[in-house]
Amino acid sequence: MFPKNTWYVACTPDDIADKPLGRQICGEKIVFFRGAEGRVAALEDFCPHRGAPLSLGKVCDGHLVCGYHGLTMGCEGKTVSMPGQRVGGFPRIRSYPVAERYGFIWVWTGDAALADPAKIHHLEWAESPDWAYAGGLYHVKADYRLMIDNLMDLTHETYVHASSIGQKEIDEAPVTTKTEGDHVITSRFMDNVMAPPFWQANLRGNGLPDDQPVDRWQVCHFSPPSHVMIEVGVALAGKGGYHADPKDKVSSIVVDFITPETEKSMWYFWGMARNFNVKDQALTAEIREGQGQVFAEDTEVLEAQQRNLDLHPQRKLLMLNIDAGGVQSRRILDRLLAQEQLPQQPPAQAAALARAA
Amino acid sequence: MFPKNTWYVACTPDDIADKPLGRQICGEKIVFFRGAEGRVAALEDFCPHRGAPLSLGKVCDGHLVCGYHGLTMGCEGKTVSMPGQRVGGFPRIRSYPVAERYGFIWVWTGDAALADPAKIHHLEWAESPDWAYAGGLYHVKADYRLMIDNLMDLTHETYVHASSIGQKEIDEAPVTTKTEGDHVITSRFMDNVMAPPFWQANLRGNGLPDDQPVDRWQVCHFSPPSHVMIEVGVALAGKGGYHADPKDKVSSIVVDFITPETEKSMWYFWGMARNFNVKDQALTAEIREGQGQVFAEDTEVLEAQQRNLDLHPQRKLLMLNIDAGGVQSRRILDRLLAQEQLPQQPPAQAAALARAA
Amino acid sequence: MFPKNTWYVACTPDDIADKPLGRQICGEKIVFFRGAEGRVAALEDFCPHRGAPLSLGKVCDGHLVCGYHGLTMGCEGKTVSMPGQRVGGFPRIRSYPVAERYGFIWVWTGDAALADPAKIHHLEWAESPDWAYAGGLYHVKADYRLMIDNLMDLTHETYVHASSIGQKEIDEAPVTTKTEGDHVITSRFMDNVMAPPFWQANLRGNGLPDDQPVDRWQVCHFSPPSHVMIEVGVALAGKGGYHADPKDKVSSIVVDFITPETEKSMWYFWGMARNFNVKDQALTAEIREGQGQVFAEDTEVLEAQQRNLDLHPQRKLLMLNIDAGGVQSRRILDRLLAQEQLPQQPPAQAAALARAA
Repeated sequence: MFPKNTWYVACTPDDIADKPLGRQICGEKIVFFRGAEGRVAALEDFCPHRGAPLSLGKVCDGHLVCGYHGLTMGCEGKTVSMPGQRVGGFPRIRSYPVAERYGFIWVWTGDAALADPAKIHHLEWAESPDWAYAGGLYHVKADYRLMIDNLMDLTHETYVHASSIGQKEIDEAPVTTKTEGDHVITSRFMDNVMAPPFWQANLRGNGLPDDQPVDRWQVCHFSPPSHVMIEVGVALAGKGGYHADPKDKVSSIVVDFITPETEKSMWYFWGMARNFNVKDQALTAEIREGQGQVFAEDTEVLEAQQRNLDLHPQRKLLMLNIDAGGVQSRRILDRLLAQEQLPQQPPAQAAALARAA
Repeated sequence: MFPKNTWYVACTPDDIADKPLGRQICGEKIVFFRGAEGRVAALEDFCPHRGAPLSLGKVCDGHLVCGYHGLTMGCEGKTVSMPGQRVGGFPRIRSYPVAERYGFIWVWTGDAALADPAKIHHLEWAESPDWAYAGGLYHVKADYRLMIDNLMDLTHETYVHASSIGQKEIDEAPVTTKTEGDHVITSRFMDNVMAPPFWQANLRGNGLPDDQPVDRWQVCHFSPPSHVMIEVGVALAGKGGYHADPKDKVSSIVVDFITPETEKSMWYFWGMARNFNVKDQALTAEIREGQGQVFAEDTEVLEAQQRNLDLHPQRKLLMLNIDAGGVQSRRILDRLLAQEQLPQQPPAQAAALARAA
Repeated sequence: MFPKNTWYVACTPDDIADKPLGRQICGEKIVFFRGAEGRVAALEDFCPHRGAPLSLGKVCDGHLVCGYHGLTMGCEGKTVSMPGQRVGGFPRIRSYPVAERYGFIWVWTGDAALADPAKIHHLEWAESPDWAYAGGLYHVKADYRLMIDNLMDLTHETYVHASSIGQKEIDEAPVTTKTEGDHVITSRFMDNVMAPPFWQANLRGNGLPDDQPVDRWQVCHFSPPSHVMIEVGVALAGKGGYHADPKDKVSSIVVDFITPETEKSMWYFWGMARNFNVKDQALTAEIREGQGQVFAEDTEVLEAQQRNLDLHPQRKLLMLNIDAGGVQSRRILDRLLAQEQLPQQPPAQAAALARAA
């Protein structure tokens, strides 16, 4: 139950720096590698000769050489050569549209004819020297939508992350959720509270006092298929909160790319982009370390939740106001999934249908 | 294939001393915790909000607070509160009759209307200062009835426990088995034999010589659903055996509560109650250590047996005289299971049916 | 999909030196042990009493005593005795024809009436003082036929074993494949090449220079059900290659017995027999160590290949000239399998059918 005609984050450049990477995405086993002139390629991870995973092989001269019998595969899925063989009649394997942008490798797992790199989710912070970014990857054995739910309702921070970013006031502040086209936004503002440990550290990291009341905010943005960008920050209380002058606040974007592996497992790319003290690499490392610990707490809860849901597949869950972010995001996913089931339409007609849905 | 309208041992007080315990029993995932005034509660381990296991949460003020979004659950399965929510319409979750008695937490996994604490298996030794008890818990991947078979036929001691409690004479002494109502008793008496190492240690522990012939006995008592209490002991030979004066013998009760987890796995609570030298805690610890090693040998055999039976589901096993204890115990279980399948009857009528069965 | 009316290597004498061995072969769980006068026996690994694996037991006086309740099983599958029981009516368990020959224990998993030790694959090197042998065993989670393919097409050495026995010239030399009855032979000759590291070591081991061009050969022999013997060697260039005088060459037989465990797993018995410097036990150990490392590389590829094929069961693989050895071997297996499906024929008629196939 995941849209396929869309761009997912597949991996980072580091993952393919030395050798090909085999990774299952949306149920498809794919090999990623750098072909001619360093361009990224993505192919079915299946050698047409005897079915060995091509990801066990090596890149030579911009082609991927199978590690079993040396079939040399081109970046488009056409066999280039094989020792002692004429390869003209070899069957193609599937190639996937792929793009490198914003420090990530993106893959399109659906109909290649519809793949347009312009549709890759724009990340303004990724291209600006005013921002620093660091993140990581977790493999989580749960439906990717459980992670969307998790991130679109930060109430859980009070409970799951009590020792780092949680605080009682999160619970107490109401949330507002709205949908704008394919974009869902959930916002929560907590005025005049004490910063929890993670934000105290960030205040110090930006040269601000950590022992004074702050105005805190969380604005979660869902975009299909499963990107959740969360504007988070604290400003010294009474200085304008979210709109405070940069010198009076610290703010970041929590970056979440959630890529389905199978129906019940995901690759969870998490990170944080910040626009203060961006040259301080020790701070970057410290934030990454802290975030990694916090987000590991989520993976444990989600895997336990998935096991519970598997035992009770018929059971209906509650949909409270705090769940509105997840609920509205899933509604958009359902619409996109329904569109993908339709017989293929000329784009204009499909757009009309989507508006009517 | 386990009766549900019955009391099973679920855990010990230690298991819920600091935090809730999630444990699957008779196929049901249950959370156990201490609620108001320290009373034990047992609920479905499923938060009605988003399905997270409640056992990941914490007890606060006698309620169980979900570790995901803070739903606060009462001991009867009714949501008490949740930050920012009106909870009146929240669906109940199932609560299970539960009781704390004899140093164990007991749960009733069937129809709550039939649960009567008076039906909890009586353990006279558990309430007397003349007895000492210690035990442990093993998780065993096998049908719980294989453990009943095992305990109701101690012939296996000669082979499985050759180095501790086994001795050739067990094999050679005939067993007698009888059923009295729902109670099955298998007895074996071995006169004028040398004590095996485990009993030599117990003789020394009670100040008796360990190098003289003894009369040894084993009397196994099965009671539904799956309790097996085994009177075991040795007396100096010719002093009256089972009926010998306490100064001439050492005897214990091997305590076995076998709680099904799933159709093919169990929680095996084992222990030993003794009425000699009961203040000697070092002896208690030593016996517990020895028994733990002996009973671990059984778990290995049972898991291998289960794997073999899974490969040969149609195959009929032998039912020899030594198997009579297990066979008669299973017959009682089959009758109880059949009764549970009947449309619900007024108790008197059900009793008549049971007698007719 | 494996023939059953055939001899497979089951284990080595070491495996049953101290205690019985339980091993699944062709889907059958079998216990191997040494019975009366040290003769090897093979029985269903299932005690007729309660289904425990007999392989958990012990051998006493030439019989196998079940480790659970002491049933004593004879080498033919007939219960010999049991403490306190009359065993005359106990059901037989299946016994398997078994033979010890050439340093291996062989088992016949099909119709016992057809088992003839004369059909055991003849190993001339195993009975001659002019040869030394050493080998090992790997458990591989893949269809046994993938290993046949692997061994009947050594092109893979260039890629899978690049650092030991692989060299580019393997790729470049053409192979020839022929079938003679049930015997498939694939040959490759590489003249005037430099020896790769494994062969350099062997040249030194036989007192020959390791820095001069050699003529190298590989002649793979498949025999049903799944034995692959590979004549391999190098001779100083121009001295006659395969036919060179023993003083100018080093040669060995790579020995592969591939025994299916289940449809998708195998016991892979690998080894090497050599007829040079046969008294040098340090060399024997060194070769074994090196071969073990090389063949472990294959198991990794095969398991990944199997996982890929499982995901794409419908997909057709290529059958190139280099695959002819595997293709022709599988054709023989298919014919043997079809013969086993036929209603049982008098041998003469079956042979006629086989010729017609």
